[in-house]
Amino acid sequence: MQKRLVVLTDGCSEPITAKTAVSVIRYGHDKVIALLDTTQPGKTSQELLGIGGDIPVVANLKDAGEADVLLIGIAPPGGRMPPQWRPILLEAIRLGMDIVSGLHDFISEDPELVSAAKEFGVVINDVRKNDEHEVANRVGIRPECLRIQAIGQDCCVGKKVVAIEIARALQQRGSDAKFVATGQTGIMIEGDGCPVDTVVADFINGAVEKLVLQNQHHDILVFEGQGSLAHPRYSAVTLGLLHGAMPHGMILCYEAGREGIHNMEQIPLTSLAQLRTAYETMANLMHPSQVIGVAMNSRLLGDDESQQERERVGKELGLPVCDVLRHGPNDLVEAVLKMQQEFVG
Amino acid sequence: MQKRLVVLTDGCSEPITAKTAVSVIRYGHDKVIALLDTTQPGKTSQELLGIGGDIPVVANLKDAGEADVLLIGIAPPGGRMPPQWRPILLEAIRLGMDIVSGLHDFISEDPELVSAAKEFGVVINDVRKNDEHEVANRVGIRPECLRIQAIGQDCCVGKKVVAIEIARALQQRGSDAKFVATGQTGIMIEGDGCPVDTVVADFINGAVEKLVLQNQHHDILVFEGQGSLAHPRYSAVTLGLLHGAMPHGMILCYEAGREGIHNMEQIPLTSLAQLRTAYETMANLMHPSQVIGVAMNSRLLGDDESQQERERVGKELGLPVCDVLRHGPNDLVEAVLKMQQEFVG
Repeated sequence: MQKRLVVLTDGCSEPITAKTAVSVIRYGHDKVIALLDTTQPGKTSQELLGIGGDIPVVANLKDAGEADVLLIGIAPPGGRMPPQWRPILLEAIRLGMDIVSGLHDFISEDPELVSAAKEFGVVINDVRKNDEHEVANRVGIRPECLRIQAIGQDCCVGKKVVAIEIARALQQRGSDAKFVATGQTGIMIEGDGCPVDTVVADFINGAVEKLVLQNQHHDILVFEGQGSLAHPRYSAVTLGLLHGAMPHGMILCYEAGREGIHNMEQIPLTSLAQLRTAYETMANLMHPSQVIGVAMNSRLLGDDESQQERERVGKELGLPVCDVLRHGPNDLVEAVLKMQQEFVG
Repeated sequence: MQKRLVVLTDGCSEPITAKTAVSVIRYGHDKVIALLDTTQPGKTSQELLGIGGDIPVVANLKDAGEADVLLIGIAPPGGRMPPQWRPILLEAIRLGMDIVSGLHDFISEDPELVSAAKEFGVVINDVRKNDEHEVANRVGIRPECLRIQAIGQDCCVGKKVVAIEIARALQQRGSDAKFVATGQTGIMIEGDGCPVDTVVADFINGAVEKLVLQNQHHDILVFEGQGSLAHPRYSAVTLGLLHGAMPHGMILCYEAGREGIHNMEQIPLTSLAQLRTAYETMANLMHPSQVIGVAMNSRLLGDDESQQERERVGKELGLPVCDVLRHGPNDLVEAVLKMQQEFVG
């Protein structure tokens, strides 16, 4: 059954911070009926996020109509809840809304919010909560299943979008492909997956290997990526994902025009060529693997600039390049199908 | 005050599985008065572990004399408690002993054991328990502090021993050096540190960066390593540690004669040369770094074989090589001091 969501983006309604909101609007199964941002009421989702058309921005939950669920639509660094959200969550609970959260701070472990949820009979769903506790074993991997992974130059470049667009395009062409979610927003969209960045360190690789074992009855798995091997904060997550998924093919995702690391802008990004070497070096420690294409996020560029960038990077790396939203994912889908053909033999 | 420890190694009293026991006997501050192994009573620690002299092996806690603490001396894969240990732990608690554990399964969250501990007034110390919750920030790193890290071809090759031996030898030569513990046994020995393999994925790099910030008033930090960048299970831990510690110099540790991954023997080890490339590639994404020496664990070799292996690897990699226990750590200490000299300028 389709639910009606209010998406909380309070004070952070721009596309890169509110990336959970953007993806749930773009790909989600449920209907978003309003954004809640007390700083910008009266605008539309399209105006703030570049997606969502006439979905209204409201300052008050009572203006959101008959919503079933309050979904937290931003991903702050470190995943902690801003203190000013507490009264909003309490009000949503009092209005009978379930809470869906992808924060590291678990709502379901907050005594005040849990007590309110009990009183008003609503459900708290902490998508990042997990009890992964198994190490990887490298047993029972089905060799006929092709594994593709979106990898990145940085956080927040669109790895999830790329993986979803490629998986859906493969499905439209008749392939038995599955998007494998590895983060909270991907899980909200797909309905299953593993919140890899919240798994205890020793079990990261094992939790991802479990995703392989659970999904390898499909012909092609397209794994959502996390972070970057060159990210000062999150590289451990990225490598555990890479070594658990053991991709045959990798799609390198980046945002054109970005120069410094997201939220750590004083640190320059590592070049695509150097990253390609790093990813191939590390992936091949587990399984033969290569970068087979580049996904460019060109939201900051005009059409001409975007075309120039696409040609420049394609020439530099000798790989197909596209922006899956601007150009469609076909060039990358072709690269995946080509790898599948060589692979099946 | 020195405590009296009984070390539990039940059914696993061989040096590689009981590595916590070996290290606590070799380096610990407290006095080990017995090993508890119901399968081999009457023997000595020296006979089973190759260390500890006449420390007796007992089958029953009551034969262990007046111990203050039961310390769990083995590290099973995944860190779970074998079910047959429960009655032993319960008896230790009833005899008034505190429990020290480095398992992933927290004793202090086991209702039966917690209730017994409360009844008999003993303390449960889960060394791996942590609440690390901060991301890395790359702010305030003191550039004059030299960071050295033990890295490995595999688990259980002696990275902790290498780091301790180098740090202690540096101290003996008058350097202001500190061993930085990153695992449960190291913490038991040093009294501080971080159990990196039990930190939530997003915060691994940050937890290690915190160790840098807390200890960088010393001139040289020697970080204990964890796992291996080529380990199918634990590579995420290894990379988070590498990117949090940002070592200037790395000491590559391996066990001569080992061919397959520890506990996954069907998977061959990655060569030292390939691993050196992988570690240098990954470390240099964060900070200029190089492998400056090789620590060989030659316990499986005789004296002649050990010397041949030392020469072979030294020639192959063009680096100083030694077994810190057999040959002493001097060659590696020289490499560290040389780096410090170039570094301070």
